[in-house]
Amino acid sequence: MNFLEQRIAKEGIVKPGNVLKVDSFLNHQMDIKLFDEIGAEFARRFEGTNINKILTIEASGIGIAAITALHFPGAKVVFAKKTKSINLDGEMFTAEVESFTHKNVNHVIVSKKFINADDHILLIDDFLANGCAMMGLIQIANQAGASIEGIGIVIEKGFQQGGQIIRNLGYKLESLAIIDAMDANTGGITFRKQ
Amino acid sequence: MNFLEQRIAKEGIVKPGNVLKVDSFLNHQMDIKLFDEIGAEFARRFEGTNINKILTIEASGIGIAAITALHFPGAKVVFAKKTKSINLDGEMFTAEVESFTHKNVNHVIVSKKFINADDHILLIDDFLANGCAMMGLIQIANQAGASIEGIGIVIEKGFQQGGQIIRNLGYKLESLAIIDAMDANTGGITFRKQ
Repeated sequence: MNFLEQRIAKEGIVKPGNVLKVDSFLNHQMDIKLFDEIGAEFARRFEGTNINKILTIEASGIGIAAITALHFPGAKVVFAKKTKSINLDGEMFTAEVESFTHKNVNHVIVSKKFINADDHILLIDDFLANGCAMMGLIQIANQAGASIEGIGIVIEKGFQQGGQIIRNLGYKLESLAIIDAMDANTGGITFRKQ
Repeated sequence: MNFLEQRIAKEGIVKPGNVLKVDSFLNHQMDIKLFDEIGAEFARRFEGTNINKILTIEASGIGIAAITALHFPGAKVVFAKKTKSINLDGEMFTAEVESFTHKNVNHVIVSKKFINADDHILLIDDFLANGCAMMGLIQIANQAGASIEGIGIVIEKGFQQGGQIIRNLGYKLESLAIIDAMDANTGGITFRKQ
């Protein structure tokens, strides 16, 4: 197991309905030293790319993207905002995103000022499950004409379809931990060998 | 002018209704090098305290708190979540927060697992205006019996009441830039001398 899988195995709590709680280090309390290891690992996996911008989505992606940026010198970080309503004034790239967890539709927006066709983007998020949020970010990067150099995910739920869909689209998707199965009764977590 | 005031003067855009847009470096695109200077300045202003936890609120506070934590070795970071509904299962500290900007009421929640009476907390946020969000964080820290060692704000709107209320409560509030007046017609921004 890598450093992240070890931490998930130690502190992650499996709840019924394929819910994994990692709020002690990832998405409520944040272990910044771990985030720094995550950032270093993303830098290793995307070595040789010319990434100049990291795009993520509020809220849990922000801390990871900010610390990861320390490992991509010169890269700017932009976080997409979630909103119920679209402002159609033309100043924003927008994508519609259906939340698997909350069963509702949100819009993801990024100001046109902050992404453009010259950008080489790394997309970052804490979780990948059905992939809807990430496909919203992909849409936005494509609307801007930017190049998507890679997609970095901390925890992928490999038993949901998002990872497969995004890899089938040809994107370089790197998930630092991929969970193939979880058992709420035993608390067991099965990681995919990488 | 300090480094932050210079950046605000250069890139901040004053909009009608006392709105200051700093989305090119603070709360949409994030300039991580600037955040590192902000973190270093918070460390300087709160030198000699025994801060072991940084508490902020989603979304814009998260990146600032994460990078600031690099300057408080060993400190953990927790971000409070905003939610419409309260889950009254007793596992959460909750506070009611009225948003000046959005004219609605939200609840701020933090899991009881992540703050306790042994904590010496630095509260961090990007903006302080009427102070409602920060007073929510203060309530939560107090519910936990934690010690509030200080409050660090990036930009305080000094013409709104939040800063005065919180200083009158006796908290050590440090705002890296305090704006006393803004003019949407001229774009002029008047900083308070510190």
